[in-house]
Amino acid sequence: MANGVTAVLLLSCRDQKGLVAAVSDFLYRHDGNIVHADQHTDHEEGVFLQRVEWQLDGFAVPRDGIAEAFRPIAERFGMTWSLRFSDEVPRVAILVSKLQHCLYDLLARWRLGELHAEIPLVISNHPDASGIADEFGATFRHFPITLETKAQQEQQIIDELEAHSIDLVIMARYMQVLSDSFVRRYPQRIINIHHSFLPAFAGARPYHQAHERGVKIIGATAHYATPELDQGPIIDQDVARVSHRDSVEDLVRKGRDLERTVLARAVDLHLRNRILVYGNKTVVFD
Amino acid sequence: MANGVTAVLLLSCRDQKGLVAAVSDFLYRHDGNIVHADQHTDHEEGVFLQRVEWQLDGFAVPRDGIAEAFRPIAERFGMTWSLRFSDEVPRVAILVSKLQHCLYDLLARWRLGELHAEIPLVISNHPDASGIADEFGATFRHFPITLETKAQQEQQIIDELEAHSIDLVIMARYMQVLSDSFVRRYPQRIINIHHSFLPAFAGARPYHQAHERGVKIIGATAHYATPELDQGPIIDQDVARVSHRDSVEDLVRKGRDLERTVLARAVDLHLRNRILVYGNKTVVFD
Amino acid sequence: MANGVTAVLLLSCRDQKGLVAAVSDFLYRHDGNIVHADQHTDHEEGVFLQRVEWQLDGFAVPRDGIAEAFRPIAERFGMTWSLRFSDEVPRVAILVSKLQHCLYDLLARWRLGELHAEIPLVISNHPDASGIADEFGATFRHFPITLETKAQQEQQIIDELEAHSIDLVIMARYMQVLSDSFVRRYPQRIINIHHSFLPAFAGARPYHQAHERGVKIIGATAHYATPELDQGPIIDQDVARVSHRDSVEDLVRKGRDLERTVLARAVDLHLRNRILVYGNKTVVFD
Amino acid sequence: MANGVTAVLLLSCRDQKGLVAAVSDFLYRHDGNIVHADQHTDHEEGVFLQRVEWQLDGFAVPRDGIAEAFRPIAERFGMTWSLRFSDEVPRVAILVSKLQHCLYDLLARWRLGELHAEIPLVISNHPDASGIADEFGATFRHFPITLETKAQQEQQIIDELEAHSIDLVIMARYMQVLSDSFVRRYPQRIINIHHSFLPAFAGARPYHQAHERGVKIIGATAHYATPELDQGPIIDQDVARVSHRDSVEDLVRKGRDLERTVLARAVDLHLRNRILVYGNKTVVFD
Repeated sequence: MANGVTAVLLLSCRDQKGLVAAVSDFLYRHDGNIVHADQHTDHEEGVFLQRVEWQLDGFAVPRDGIAEAFRPIAERFGMTWSLRFSDEVPRVAILVSKLQHCLYDLLARWRLGELHAEIPLVISNHPDASGIADEFGATFRHFPITLETKAQQEQQIIDELEAHSIDLVIMARYMQVLSDSFVRRYPQRIINIHHSFLPAFAGARPYHQAHERGVKIIGATAHYATPELDQGPIIDQDVARVSHRDSVEDLVRKGRDLERTVLARAVDLHLRNRILVYGNKTVVFD
Repeated sequence: MANGVTAVLLLSCRDQKGLVAAVSDFLYRHDGNIVHADQHTDHEEGVFLQRVEWQLDGFAVPRDGIAEAFRPIAERFGMTWSLRFSDEVPRVAILVSKLQHCLYDLLARWRLGELHAEIPLVISNHPDASGIADEFGATFRHFPITLETKAQQEQQIIDELEAHSIDLVIMARYMQVLSDSFVRRYPQRIINIHHSFLPAFAGARPYHQAHERGVKIIGATAHYATPELDQGPIIDQDVARVSHRDSVEDLVRKGRDLERTVLARAVDLHLRNRILVYGNKTVVFD
Repeated sequence: MANGVTAVLLLSCRDQKGLVAAVSDFLYRHDGNIVHADQHTDHEEGVFLQRVEWQLDGFAVPRDGIAEAFRPIAERFGMTWSLRFSDEVPRVAILVSKLQHCLYDLLARWRLGELHAEIPLVISNHPDASGIADEFGATFRHFPITLETKAQQEQQIIDELEAHSIDLVIMARYMQVLSDSFVRRYPQRIINIHHSFLPAFAGARPYHQAHERGVKIIGATAHYATPELDQGPIIDQDVARVSHRDSVEDLVRKGRDLERTVLARAVDLHLRNRILVYGNKTVVFD
Repeated sequence: MANGVTAVLLLSCRDQKGLVAAVSDFLYRHDGNIVHADQHTDHEEGVFLQRVEWQLDGFAVPRDGIAEAFRPIAERFGMTWSLRFSDEVPRVAILVSKLQHCLYDLLARWRLGELHAEIPLVISNHPDASGIADEFGATFRHFPITLETKAQQEQQIIDELEAHSIDLVIMARYMQVLSDSFVRRYPQRIINIHHSFLPAFAGARPYHQAHERGVKIIGATAHYATPELDQGPIIDQDVARVSHRDSVEDLVRKGRDLERTVLARAVDLHLRNRILVYGNKTVVFD
């Protein structure tokens, strides 16, 4: 569909008259061939958010000048905005503990060309995932963690993320709580998968909690990490029916498929620049 | 949200540069306060479709002049378009045979204020629904049908639809096939519920077909009626899990909930002017 | 399928060898024609639960003697058990406040023959539902409630439930918290619908909570009422996808369909003797 | 739960009185500790099917003698039956063409210990999957196929399946139609994934068909292969919502997740001996 490179503009601001007209006029005047456009107005909060994607080929403003050309409009309406190009390939690091199904799933999707990303780095507090990382040609770092070494271990992680110029961190069942300072360092750049339909069963051992409560539906939630554990903006969720026949082990087994799929969908949406965050919510232009 | 009366513009045309800019500019110039805007481009077919809704209160063009003011834009781009106002309440007739769960469900939703409609008329080829129609204050017409009287019976229905100034006809498990000429008379104004996830199990006795085939999921489909049976543009579908434990009777029972919900959702979308049809497909701006 | 009257045996006890053999042998020796049999063993808790349904026609023990004949087996294994017959029609009362969609839905299902019940009684703390109850020929009682009159109002309700020999109480969006003593009086005989996927968003205004949290899925939960609010054994749950486009009003609208369907399913399962409760969980033999 | 080795009895026969009693008595008399038991009666067809699993530890009949001990009961009721043990690990071969997401997913699940199987063999009509098979230590065979060489190529496949003592063949998006004689050779031992909710969109290019038809839900179906293409007994199905926004490419992308999950679930059910086939249907004791 979108042959050649495209530009993506993601913007949000206070809802005002003339916003859509101004942006459409900007693209129209410069012969922009729009391949995707979507917007959302939160009338309660008075917030306007928009995503627009157009082909560089034929656009009257050269790539390097687009940001400059758009800036007056952005300033006029007080926009928070970013401009991205489809040939920029985000660099992703995966944090993992002992469970490797999400790690494997993401790496396989990457290898199969399903993810618009490079995955040069896998980091774990356990040595188990070393072999998988090797197979996929990713650097593996094993940084064990204890209560005493937490700060130091996080610094090791940060150093690696910086060294590999990482754009997005995925917590693929990484069973450690990241410190506030770590999380704040990567706003909307850390995606976590939690194995319940949040806000139900936040915290530890959600499948045990779900089994104990006798729910008829289990779920998984992908969200951006924020300093408050399991409280960040939700990107995607999915659920599966369970019954009295399902033991905790069955919930774990059925839940793995949810975790894999929901995490991969959320990562894919992020990598395709489909997500805008405002307040503690996401707008997903899928 | 949308206090007071709103105007809704539904339009479609060949995809062209400047479309969005022209429409946004029209609303902006006249101080339109947009409460909903959504668009879709089918790049394969080269078709652009848009829905935009704004408040009349504060709009610089008086209600009676809006169509006239917009016409030049419509003509410039060769649009198919319609303009509606939120205080126009569509008039609905329900066709039904013996099964009354969808009829009852729609009437109850109407009574409860969930549907933006009047339902002055219920027509059946059986006398059974007479009591229900009475309870809800709708006129009931019983027009029996035989192979010989089909044309005549349809004329009776048409006469009643005209007499009651009906805008939308709902086939709420009406077990008769409408003639081509009948269907063509009400394009995109007849909604049918079919008790399968079309195109699977078109035609008669879909639950028996589903049971015979041993499917693990059943469904229901709401669509606009077209001369080709069960082939019209799909508005909504939904499904439910079934298992080997479910007899045909169980499928019928579980399917009733799907039929009720899917039909009501489709009708609600139509009544809120959320659907555009092009080719044999719908665009649903929900 | 089950022509004529059937007997249903619901039993639970400590898991022991020989249980299934003893029950099957009992039915086999007396020429029982089984139409449904299902069992569940909770290996963690060491609990066995079974439902078996067979035709009275042809059974060697007369209806009045079945309980007596089965008692020795029940005592040998220390069973909690009940015996029911398919021609016993449970008597149901519905409690409702201002929102009437669940009330309407249940009454319509009853009228259409979908529920194996009589519904002779509707009770509300508001007068609004009076007309609907009348239409369906149910007695309507309006018992207003204030903080001061709560105990007295509950006594009025109890008196009516007794007077009408009610077997099952349905809280169809009844927006009052029943007292402990009330709930304890009707163990596993009060079904409530909560408008969230419990345990998420227990308590007041769950759709507002869901909107605030930015979830991508909403739900509804039918459960038996227990003294702890929203904590009783879950019978059924269902969910629907939502997005950033959905306002609180949209969640309320979409949630209504979940509430209707989930409550009706739970009530139907109860009325067909498909539910066993142990601990704080249900076993649903559907 | 089931510590140590378990035995699984899968049986079906004409529905007769005394069946359940006879099987339960057999297990009870020999001190069988049942870990799972489920049965199904198809009253229309008059067919009874049962699955029962019990621990070998403590069972009075030695493993080698169980079949002999059960035979009289099987013969008395005319049962079709099989006896399996949980320490027997089925040997699986995967057939694949160019698309490798299902192949990768299955191999990763195997490596992670999620599948109770060995996967010693991958066969393809294209060379692409060679590298993946190598990584996972599976033998890879590339057997190209043309109209002229079809019979010969199938013989090559059969030879490999025999050489590797394969119990189950998985068509993981293998885009060739197997001949009748091939399929008949492995009854209920070939699982195929079809990328639609059958029976809708059988045959070629189902996502294109789905897009053309404008459905609002897509699906995937895992079934046992039979000589009639896409007509075999359905094991599992799942679906995902789509909208007018989804191009064919989007359907393909969203469908991949369905294909992966549905195929893996079906394979897992087969490997855990949870499926019985009768007529053209499955009974899935999950």
